[in-house]
Amino acid sequence: MNNFIYEIPTKVYFGENQLQGNLSQEIKKYGNKVLLVYGGGSIKKIGLYQKIVNELKNSNIEIYEFSGIEPNPKHTSINEAASICKENDIDIILAVGGGSVIDSSKLISAGKYYDGDVWDLVLKKAEIQKAMPIITILTMSAAGSEMNNNAIISNKETHEKKGIKSPLFIPKVSFLDPTITYSVNKYQTACGSFDILSHIMETYFSRNSGLYMLDTVMEGLMKTVIKYAKIAYNEPENYEARANLMWASSWAINGFARMDRQPNVWVCHLLEHQLSAFYDITHGLGLAILTPRYLRYLLNENTVDRFYSFGVNVWNIDFSLPKTEVAKKSIECLENLCYKDLELTNNLSDLNIDDKHFEEMANRICSNGAVKGFIDLDKKDIIKIFKYCL
Amino acid sequence: MNNFIYEIPTKVYFGENQLQGNLSQEIKKYGNKVLLVYGGGSIKKIGLYQKIVNELKNSNIEIYEFSGIEPNPKHTSINEAASICKENDIDIILAVGGGSVIDSSKLISAGKYYDGDVWDLVLKKAEIQKAMPIITILTMSAAGSEMNNNAIISNKETHEKKGIKSPLFIPKVSFLDPTITYSVNKYQTACGSFDILSHIMETYFSRNSGLYMLDTVMEGLMKTVIKYAKIAYNEPENYEARANLMWASSWAINGFARMDRQPNVWVCHLLEHQLSAFYDITHGLGLAILTPRYLRYLLNENTVDRFYSFGVNVWNIDFSLPKTEVAKKSIECLENLCYKDLELTNNLSDLNIDDKHFEEMANRICSNGAVKGFIDLDKKDIIKIFKYCL
Repeated sequence: MNNFIYEIPTKVYFGENQLQGNLSQEIKKYGNKVLLVYGGGSIKKIGLYQKIVNELKNSNIEIYEFSGIEPNPKHTSINEAASICKENDIDIILAVGGGSVIDSSKLISAGKYYDGDVWDLVLKKAEIQKAMPIITILTMSAAGSEMNNNAIISNKETHEKKGIKSPLFIPKVSFLDPTITYSVNKYQTACGSFDILSHIMETYFSRNSGLYMLDTVMEGLMKTVIKYAKIAYNEPENYEARANLMWASSWAINGFARMDRQPNVWVCHLLEHQLSAFYDITHGLGLAILTPRYLRYLLNENTVDRFYSFGVNVWNIDFSLPKTEVAKKSIECLENLCYKDLELTNNLSDLNIDDKHFEEMANRICSNGAVKGFIDLDKKDIIKIFKYCL
Repeated sequence: MNNFIYEIPTKVYFGENQLQGNLSQEIKKYGNKVLLVYGGGSIKKIGLYQKIVNELKNSNIEIYEFSGIEPNPKHTSINEAASICKENDIDIILAVGGGSVIDSSKLISAGKYYDGDVWDLVLKKAEIQKAMPIITILTMSAAGSEMNNNAIISNKETHEKKGIKSPLFIPKVSFLDPTITYSVNKYQTACGSFDILSHIMETYFSRNSGLYMLDTVMEGLMKTVIKYAKIAYNEPENYEARANLMWASSWAINGFARMDRQPNVWVCHLLEHQLSAFYDITHGLGLAILTPRYLRYLLNENTVDRFYSFGVNVWNIDFSLPKTEVAKKSIECLENLCYKDLELTNNLSDLNIDDKHFEEMANRICSNGAVKGFIDLDKKDIIKIFKYCL
């Protein structure tokens, strides 16, 4: 168990109809010129865009816009948006979207104060010295970016997808309204839910043990996601399901559950980032294909205890069964969730992905040697796991 | 389920040896004149006092002291300390202790800016306009004051013990070092642990349902306290036990688990505050005597489902048993924890308390009508519960 520093200052307005009054009041703490960042037209379709614009105009807040942020967001878009912030001396970013929009906004916020390509910041060629404050309105429960210091950005030219962290990236305020996610379609609900689940599992299945208390919290979060992913998938307007997924998504990855067990290598995320960098697939889908294979690869007599806890405490498997049986059943339960309940594709071949780039992907993952996840994984191990996914 | 605003900005340094360098750096963000508030001599005995003084002196921080804060802290002491802050224009309070010291420091911090008796603030005769920043070093896992907006203060003259809340009370920084609690004696460890457990139970057994996710978090916290209270009781220097109790104590009552289920009346705390106002008994002991009786009083066919979850998810009672049987067993488990494992006194008579003041105590509790806990409780109900405790 490690020492740690806990600091999660994001203020969250949770629930329906919290925007009015609160949004402009929070923005005005930081300035009067806001860059509204969003993705496609979905926020217009559900009426959210108009609500936001009305609220800001009523408070005489000056709005600039940057839209069209894509999934697996690209550094070139971020450079463009940062230029707008420089030219117009923007005070604050209002990010309206899911992980891609919020992650992009984080890098835009730093880009305003950097003279050059923001990809330099991602590569740590230059340090983030300053960043604009960010307020978010979450439209999809998945990435958890609304309450943490992390951003994931892609470079299409070099097939790279990389994470970058800064305490300056933590949103000041996030608005979490479960009803906004009613319009998230079945496929995105499934992928998003698995993304949340993966964020918890990546810490739960790790080599460093930590506080039992946080194990129980993680088990509770996993039970929550498993229970409500299915409900939200089948009943998109079920408030209880959307609310539980939404708040779980933030807590899965705001740092609370894993500060005490560093270093914590996120193996499935490392592998998935290569997949989506090369093939631009949905992140949550990539994780759902990879994770059960990774778990099977991981299971041995040294790791079985963790699987046993996972099976008994998360999946309610009979605790009196032999440990290995519980472990195997727990992976089957996970597969049932992904491929039956949530109807996700269960292999890469169906996505027209073959083994062509696996060698290069594994090389990149192991550029600094073996991956120190729950067990050590070298290049050969990683290629094997990718191949299991075909 | 209610809408809520989540905001818990306290920065926490968790673990061993985090004071050096960090403490003075954090203090200096707020000023150079610090009032060091503590209780008796225990922080001198364990060498903590000297460590703090060395650290502050090395950084040229000017130290004023106010010691002798007692359990169930009194408003008169707080008035004295507030005067010191006024006279010397103190910048920041460093509270070193458990709940009593931190709660007192919160009211001292507001007292500096109020010309009059701080009891006026507790009675809401005057509003808290401003307060000094507070940094805490926790010496006992129990009250959870190190991460929340609440203070409990007693008035000896009027036999009153009351809570007061303000966002200005939330500590800026708290240092949580489990090894500091190694010297907490067995009795205080038992009482403190039950206090933590009660903070969770008071929300878990409440009339307003909330997010399932937070139910699972509360169940995890309760399992944690139950597991480690016994270990810390028997092995005071068990780091794992002290660490789990310490972090659980903060999360039991920092607001996270209950923001979504307001109003949330804390019935056992209401009753216990009368007990300790009249008899000055240890808060955790009062709760341990009251809670099992309250639960027995509460159990009926409308409330049994909650007891069933408590029994199955917290105490691992066989889920296939009839609900009422699980419910009754769960209360027995709790009694075993309190009166066998933690060897706490199981009745008020042994503390020389009789029914003399029960009528008046119940009158005070019901001054605004029936208590709307999990079920409605009127004066007669409350007197009955007190009498069960004799």
